Parts: sequence; structure tokens; C-alpha cells
Amino acid sequence: MHAISLQPPYLIFLGDESRRTYAKTGAGLVDWRRQLCAGQFRLSADAADLGLPDMSIEEAVAAGVKSLIIGTAPVGGALPASWQPALVAAAGAGLDIVAGLHTRLADNPGLSAAATSSGARLVDIRVPPAELPVATGKKRSGLRLLTVGTDCALGKKYTALQLERDMRSAGLDADFRASGQTGIMIAGRGIPLDAVVSDFLSGAAELLSPDNGPGHWDVIEGQGGIFHPAYAPVSHGLLLGSQPDAFVVCHEAGREQISGWEHYPVPSIEDVIARTVAVGSMTNRNIRCVGVSINSSTLPATERGAYLAALARRYDLPCVDPLVEGTGAIVDHLVQQFQP
Amino acid sequence: MHAISLQPPYLIFLGDESRRTYAKTGAGLVDWRRQLCAGQFRLSADAADLGLPDMSIEEAVAAGVKSLIIGTAPVGGALPASWQPALVAAAGAGLDIVAGLHTRLADNPGLSAAATSSGARLVDIRVPPAELPVATGKKRSGLRLLTVGTDCALGKKYTALQLERDMRSAGLDADFRASGQTGIMIAGRGIPLDAVVSDFLSGAAELLSPDNGPGHWDVIEGQGGIFHPAYAPVSHGLLLGSQPDAFVVCHEAGREQISGWEHYPVPSIEDVIARTVAVGSMTNRNIRCVGVSINSSTLPATERGAYLAALARRYDLPCVDPLVEGTGAIVDHLVQQFQP
Repeated sequence: MHAISLQPPYLIFLGDESRRTYAKTGAGLVDWRRQLCAGQFRLSADAADLGLPDMSIEEAVAAGVKSLIIGTAPVGGALPASWQPALVAAAGAGLDIVAGLHTRLADNPGLSAAATSSGARLVDIRVPPAELPVATGKKRSGLRLLTVGTDCALGKKYTALQLERDMRSAGLDADFRASGQTGIMIAGRGIPLDAVVSDFLSGAAELLSPDNGPGHWDVIEGQGGIFHPAYAPVSHGLLLGSQPDAFVVCHEAGREQISGWEHYPVPSIEDVIARTVAVGSMTNRNIRCVGVSINSSTLPATERGAYLAALARRYDLPCVDPLVEGTGAIVDHLVQQFQP
Repeated sequence: MHAISLQPPYLIFLGDESRRTYAKTGAGLVDWRRQLCAGQFRLSADAADLGLPDMSIEEAVAAGVKSLIIGTAPVGGALPASWQPALVAAAGAGLDIVAGLHTRLADNPGLSAAATSSGARLVDIRVPPAELPVATGKKRSGLRLLTVGTDCALGKKYTALQLERDMRSAGLDADFRASGQTGIMIAGRGIPLDAVVSDFLSGAAELLSPDNGPGHWDVIEGQGGIFHPAYAPVSHGLLLGSQPDAFVVCHEAGREQISGWEHYPVPSIEDVIARTVAVGSMTNRNIRCVGVSINSSTLPATERGAYLAALARRYDLPCVDPLVEGTGAIVDHLVQQFQP
């Protein structure tokens, strides 16, 4: 397996960041993988509190922690000098250091020396694994669901994680597969597809959901949007390499322009379904849409129900806001569609 | 301009390679850019002869040569030891060294030291420029034609070069734009799109054909194939970023399976036209197919005419084998379609 892989349990490092919005990686880990988080390390009492036990490096080592994960995004993306002593101590004590910074951990001499002496790994989540293969296009065993979107940043990762949770609750064998940085932190493994060299994009996507048992579902985090003027190639490669049997379209109610590309309209859900089937059927002829996931946070609460009901009638598919009612209705439909 | 850029005139380095098929980069340069090739440098009398004047490094410098281009592919992709003295002498004399090897020229200490002392550049054609932008999706001035294909390696580069030649003969202002290694050697500039990180693929394609005069044509070398199981994302990104007004479909007569992916059929020309219009219209609504370019080398000479005539009737488009009759018929059609 060439994908990035993290070793739990984790100590979540929060530095001196008091704004919880900047600590969203750490918060995501607690939301979705609480059982892997042994404790938190804060440099000041003002730092964001994720509700985990506060631990020193020594206490974390004694508790069996294997990795320190930087759970907050420093301004500018580089390692603040105030973080250095704690991180060097952790690496020196043998903890893997995991980060998604703009600068590479290995380029920090103190950290690099400490990790070399203890044998700890410095894991940069932004860096794809070396020696990725070119796609084979060969069908793999097991079942796959991909979340796709009408745009970026509207809930593809969240929907996939909620689907994994609800599928497991329904007794299905399901694993979330991460294709972006925050997702990789949460899953503890994955490949940052947007950083992969183009020739190996579909090959990396194939590697992300390898052969599996016949009833097993990989729930793959989508990227970009198939109608996005800049990121469509990433969406295209992920779709071809994932060979999904099923997909869920994610959309934000009321979003009309591609965020950051305001001269481009958000495509209709119909168009995303049709293009996803057209492209996806190249590598899996049985691909089908199994639901629509709506980020309805922009709607008045009183309009939400009618909005979802109208979509459900139009597409004859379950339409949910995963934050509000979960994805159970989509899972029920999926089970029905893929009965052995 | 961030793209790779070579300085002519050139000295073509052929080493001791006697097989002309291995010297195809050098042969391509002589075929398409004879006026930029001042001479050839051969390590032995048995080496392939491109018909250029043989020159020593000293003679090349005296003749005003600015770059030594490695015009042959060494077995294994690394720099043979027997080449080292001549290349070090050339770099030391101030000639840029240009190569598309698997190993980086700058990783060769002798070459690196010689280039540093003289100020010569070591140009690796396989390495994309740093700091490529994300695509904007904004329309650029000027006109663009992209060659697309039913598969890889069937004439997209050759067709684009012949189109440039025939468009110039017809009095049009046209420039070939290279997106792959051999094309970059010939054009003296370009971006190796298959080596670009996925997030910047469409942005690199935008950079490849910048704003230009209203009647100017960029003739862009296509990559991969929009129905290729591994390389479709590259084709997709190049199509979105190129924003072509016109495209030519390239196909090899009789090829039925994707080369190297024999479980995938070659798509029909109809399907390639339809999908190229569907995807390309995202960034240019006026995109249209203006011709079909056939590699007919697999057909008996007696069947060629009937084959092309049948295709021309079916698509109502000029269909040519560019090696046999050139692309003049496509240029005539293009002029008619894009009359001011």
C-alpha cells in the first residue's frame, strides 16, 4: 500500500490557537474519530479546548500515544517558533509528527534531527506518496460510493463521513476513503489527489479503494466538481479511478455561482448526474446516482422540508441534509438498490 | 511567461546512437525547425546522420550556437558516461544543455559545476515550470485550435505541426503550442502537461496559449484521449484550459483497442466529437470540430482514398492523412468557418 498511513492513538496539538474555526482539523478528528484521540496538547490555557484530556508529551508517551497531530492551521502555513520546543520533544520521544502545513516538516532541522534519533516519522499530509502507478482501468472487487458536487466546499467530505457512520449503523461493512488533507487526517490514511502529478491521477484514485470483499463499501470523498473550470480534471480522474457503483450529488441550497469563479454558474443537479454517469460509465457501466445531499444552512428552517421534498420528487431519489437528518434515507435506498 | 523556453540556434547532440529511430527528437527538430539547427555533434562516425553540418563544441560556439539539445534517447533514460566530456565542455563553453532524460541534468555534479561557472542553463524538458497558476476560466483573445485523439500516439503532435505549416502557407498567423516533451523540443517552448500537479493542470493549459491578436491561431498539441482510462484527466484539463474555438480529431485507421489497455475499445470519432464539444463548451461555447486527421499507415494504399472519402461523407468534414496530403483541406474549411 503506497497511501499515507497514520498510527493511532493520537495526541492533538492545538498550540496557542484560541479560535475554534482554526482548529477545525482537530475538531474534525474528535467529531469523527473520537476513539483514536487519547488527548490534547495546548500551549496556553486560552487555546481551543476540544474536550479531550490535556496531556504532556511524557503523559502521552506513557498512555501509548503513537502520533502527534497538528490540529490547527497556523497563519501563513509555516511552523510558529513557539511550537518548536514541544514538537521537537514529541519527535524526540518517538511520536510521529503529522501536519498539513505549506512548509515541509523535514525541512525543519531541529525536528528532523529529533525524528532521526528516535525513529519517529515526519508525515506531511500535503505530500502524495512516491511512485504512484498509472491507472489500469481494471475492475476491482467490492462496492464503491463516491460523493460528487456541484462545486467545491459544500459537503462532499462531511456527506461521505456521515454515510460511513450510517452504513455501519445499518450493519454494512463500510470504510471512508480520504482524497484530501482534512479527510486524510480523519481517516488516518489516503492520498491528497489534488497534489498528484496529472499522469498518475486516476492511478492514485485506483489505489485509494483497492480490492475488497464482495459486500464491502468504500465511501470515497469527492474533490472539486465535474463542471468546475479549474478543478474538473481532478474530479474526472477521481471518478475514473474510483469506478464507483453508486454516487451521491452534494449541493448547497441557493449557491448559484462557482465560489471564486463567479463568471461560472453552478451546474444543475441533473447535469451533474448526467455527466457523472457519462464519464463514470467508462470504467463502470453500472454506475448510478443513489441520492442527493443538500447543505441547507442558507435556507430558513421553515423552508428546508419543502425544498428537500421538491428535490426528492424531481429526481425520485432520497434528498437529505446530512447535518440535520443524517444520510439514513440514502443508505436505505442503497441497500435496496444493491440487494444481492 | 512561466513556460519552458529554449534559446536557438541549436547544436543537435547524437552521441554514438546509430539507430535513427532512437534519434527521433533530433529528426523531429530537423523536420520541423531546420532553420534553428546550426549543426550536429556525433561521438562516432557510425552515429545517426541528420544531414546537418558536423561541428565541434568550439565550432558551434564560433557559429553563435546557444543551446546543445540532446536529440537521442539513451537506453534506460540516464546520461551515459561516454557523453559526459562533450556535454561538460559544451556547458563550460556557455551552451545551454537541453534534455528530456529520466534523471535531472542538475543532479550530474560535473555538468552542474560547468554550467554554474559559465552561466549556462541546464534545461530538463520533463520538469514543468514552478509556480503554475490555478485556472481562471476567463476567455482570452485570439483563436485556438486543439488536436484531440481517439487514443494516445496516433498523430496529434504531427497533425498540429502540419496544421501550423499549412496555416502559415495559407497566410494565417499561426503558432504551434507544445504540451509534451518532443513537442517542446520542436517548439522551443511549452509545458509538459502530464508532469503538472493536478490542481494546476487547467491553469498550465491556460498559460500555454496566452492572449494574442484577434486573427492569430494557436495550434495546440493534444495529449492522451478524452476516453482514455488513465490519461483522460490530462486531456480534460488541456481541453478546459485551451478554450479551443476549433478542434481536429486524430485517429489511426484500424486501431480498435486502446494501446496498452486492450480491455478498452477505441471510442468512435462521433463519440470523441460529442464529448469534446460537451466538455469544451464549458469554457468556450463556440467550440466546433473542423476536421479529422487519419493515420492511414495501416491501410493498403489502394484503400486509403475510399476510407477517407467515406469518413468525409459521414462527418461532413475534411478528412485527411497529414503525412500524405497535408492538412490544407482542413485549413480551407477553417478559414471558411472563421471568416471575420
